[in-house]
Amino acid sequence: MNEQGWRDRLDAKQDDHLRELVDLLGVPSVSTDPARRADVRHAATIVAERLRTAGVPDVILAESAGHPAVIGRWLVDDTQPTILIYGHYDVQPAEPLELWESDAFTPTIRDGKLYARGSADMKGNLLTAIQGVEAIAAANDGRPPINVTFIFEGEEEIGSPNLRAIVREYKDWLMADAVVSADGGQHGPGVPSQSVALKGLGGCQINLATANSDLHSGMYGATVPNAVQSLVQLAATFHDAEGRVTVAGFYDNVKDLTDAERAEIAAVPFDEAELKHEVGLDELWGEVGWTPRERQWARPTLDMNGIWGGFQGDGVKTVTPREAHLKITCRLVPDQDPAEVVELIRTHVAAHRPPGATVEVVSLPGSARPFVLDRSNPVHLAVGDVLRDLFGREPYVVRTGGTVPATGIFKEELGIDTATLGWSMPGSGAHAPNEWYRIEDYYVGRIGYAALVERLRR
Amino acid sequence: MNEQGWRDRLDAKQDDHLRELVDLLGVPSVSTDPARRADVRHAATIVAERLRTAGVPDVILAESAGHPAVIGRWLVDDTQPTILIYGHYDVQPAEPLELWESDAFTPTIRDGKLYARGSADMKGNLLTAIQGVEAIAAANDGRPPINVTFIFEGEEEIGSPNLRAIVREYKDWLMADAVVSADGGQHGPGVPSQSVALKGLGGCQINLATANSDLHSGMYGATVPNAVQSLVQLAATFHDAEGRVTVAGFYDNVKDLTDAERAEIAAVPFDEAELKHEVGLDELWGEVGWTPRERQWARPTLDMNGIWGGFQGDGVKTVTPREAHLKITCRLVPDQDPAEVVELIRTHVAAHRPPGATVEVVSLPGSARPFVLDRSNPVHLAVGDVLRDLFGREPYVVRTGGTVPATGIFKEELGIDTATLGWSMPGSGAHAPNEWYRIEDYYVGRIGYAALVERLRR
Repeated sequence: MNEQGWRDRLDAKQDDHLRELVDLLGVPSVSTDPARRADVRHAATIVAERLRTAGVPDVILAESAGHPAVIGRWLVDDTQPTILIYGHYDVQPAEPLELWESDAFTPTIRDGKLYARGSADMKGNLLTAIQGVEAIAAANDGRPPINVTFIFEGEEEIGSPNLRAIVREYKDWLMADAVVSADGGQHGPGVPSQSVALKGLGGCQINLATANSDLHSGMYGATVPNAVQSLVQLAATFHDAEGRVTVAGFYDNVKDLTDAERAEIAAVPFDEAELKHEVGLDELWGEVGWTPRERQWARPTLDMNGIWGGFQGDGVKTVTPREAHLKITCRLVPDQDPAEVVELIRTHVAAHRPPGATVEVVSLPGSARPFVLDRSNPVHLAVGDVLRDLFGREPYVVRTGGTVPATGIFKEELGIDTATLGWSMPGSGAHAPNEWYRIEDYYVGRIGYAALVERLRR
Repeated sequence: MNEQGWRDRLDAKQDDHLRELVDLLGVPSVSTDPARRADVRHAATIVAERLRTAGVPDVILAESAGHPAVIGRWLVDDTQPTILIYGHYDVQPAEPLELWESDAFTPTIRDGKLYARGSADMKGNLLTAIQGVEAIAAANDGRPPINVTFIFEGEEEIGSPNLRAIVREYKDWLMADAVVSADGGQHGPGVPSQSVALKGLGGCQINLATANSDLHSGMYGATVPNAVQSLVQLAATFHDAEGRVTVAGFYDNVKDLTDAERAEIAAVPFDEAELKHEVGLDELWGEVGWTPRERQWARPTLDMNGIWGGFQGDGVKTVTPREAHLKITCRLVPDQDPAEVVELIRTHVAAHRPPGATVEVVSLPGSARPFVLDRSNPVHLAVGDVLRDLFGREPYVVRTGGTVPATGIFKEELGIDTATLGWSMPGSGAHAPNEWYRIEDYYVGRIGYAALVERLRR
């Protein structure tokens, strides 16, 4: 073992590694966009090739009905543990493009941050894992001290619809003692944290129709139901004035937070003024009776992601629209079930159907169960030690409002829990314009992954 | 005077005249679409040329800040009255294109109807007026028996924003004893009607913003106001459960219908089952306490013409939208004032501003005052006689739910009232896909205009 060896190597490689990240960010691997299919595959081949140059002997593109996953297997010693490092190489759409200060797929450095779609979520984190393992292998006679398997999927941003099938097909390749997800972040610059919970996700699209045609509002507006007006009436029934979700049964399976959990959440600093400043708001919003952090981390939400109907151009069109549409996703907590929640929404919609309207509720792909990690998980403990070493302080115990469907799939298909080690910062604009990633965190992240592998050696 | 002469001439010209209509409908003169500017001008030049071939000696394109109006002046005898025939050559957008059974700008005949955008509203009516005047002039030594001026504008479908300026500039050309608007229709096939009222129009766009950026719904959805959710909450406050507009003061200036007016409206046959069948609905909607006809013709409405915000693509994007938009127009009745109504909406929006949201209300162009015709107007009486002759029955006295801003402008700028003589049918899809115009009505309409000119000769 030669810790100074891999640290020196990582220091020497900073410029090369930054270039690698810039190259990967330049590929618009937007998984939701059919026009980007070739770009998504291009990103997969870059990641596969990067695993090979790192020394990983078995690297494949695991094909699926959608985008491929990249799987790399580096088995070195069956007396040593095996970790499965998870991540994704796909990104969210960059729209609305006009809000980006620099092109979303032309990575640009400003103030020590790299701005690009996918920088924080999560091409930077993905490369830190590969580069960290590469460095420790190079300093250890060309092989890592433990068995390491990688799986980087190309459909996380669309809810991992084919990951379960891939995990089933490659079960033998993927079986491990623990999963480490690189899809995460830290509390703040120099302040570590460990996530112990992820929210689940369930979503649907509501398609509402009134007449069989768009109509002249002067001739028909007074007698024929207006689809936009009907949809806003329906949509306004999903929350009460105090931010609670009014869908009957929505909270039935929600496990109440214990006093200990509320105390743990309250122990993590939260700067409400900073959040308001970041998003440009004077007042926050949300379910009454819970702190903002409790709402973010441990209370379920029903979120409207998009709405459209009728005339959306410049000027005036005096039309009575025939149809309108609403996209909803719910962030879920234990023990809510995604399919059950969509059913509850379906029942709510049927009960609140506006007069004269026909309404259908279509489940959207990408559902995921909520996840809570057992605190005694050995990799979780090792990640804690790595963070203590790197940052010289105790990591905060945090939760994640986001959703990583893979976590549930690994649990259900392989029986393995997932710990998280990632480097993104709060406010870095994942899923939003002007997404960024601190270059300093990128460099440190590689050290973290090398250190984690070293710590897990028996 | 040679009535048989112009009737024979019109019969002989049916095929030529149908071809003229097909040609004019083939020009996509969509006034609201900047990309169609050249097409709009092309339609204007066709109309101007058609006036010239009809024999009209003075024809100009009256330029404006927007699309030109076509003005034709045919002064023959200052002992005879002068009528100003009004119409428009612009059309509504054809979107959504996929709902058309044949291309919107490739006129197609099915079952005696010509299907095309602008057929009912109102290129057919426009040509009947020119062709009717042409025929009676041809049978009368090449000049009509009375003075006839035409004005066909190119911006009716966007609310005639420049018509007032044009009317002021060409006041000397346009001064007349009465206006006849060709922008209208009849009660049904073979059943005449005369419109005595038009609704007014006032509109605005509501732009609502919450955060300064689209945000990750998992990270922010529980604490940051969602623009789509905020907008639906706001939009749902505009009507109560019984279809009344809840904007404070909205009904204050509405003149109550008299018992006589309600009786007049009730005397016009209304087939509720037929309306439901036409639009494909089981139940109608609207303000309680009034019949469907009263609502259509004589009660004001607040109509949502379009809404949009957040993610509208296929699949899932777990975004908390930063902004959302709503387009509203109100159909107004005497004595509501369009600007005042938009102010009332502005006040309503301020009072119902969702927490954390910033909201602006932008007035839309195209406002118009409501209009009611004096029943003793001589041209209105002459139109009644023409309809009695053509159809052999008493015309129904009807009102129009639609808006023709020109009517108010002629009243205010020239002091002249507007009677209406048009040929479109109810349910002909003005402003909707698959707009149609009965070819039989087109042929009869030309006779009606020739007969009107003859009747107005002293």
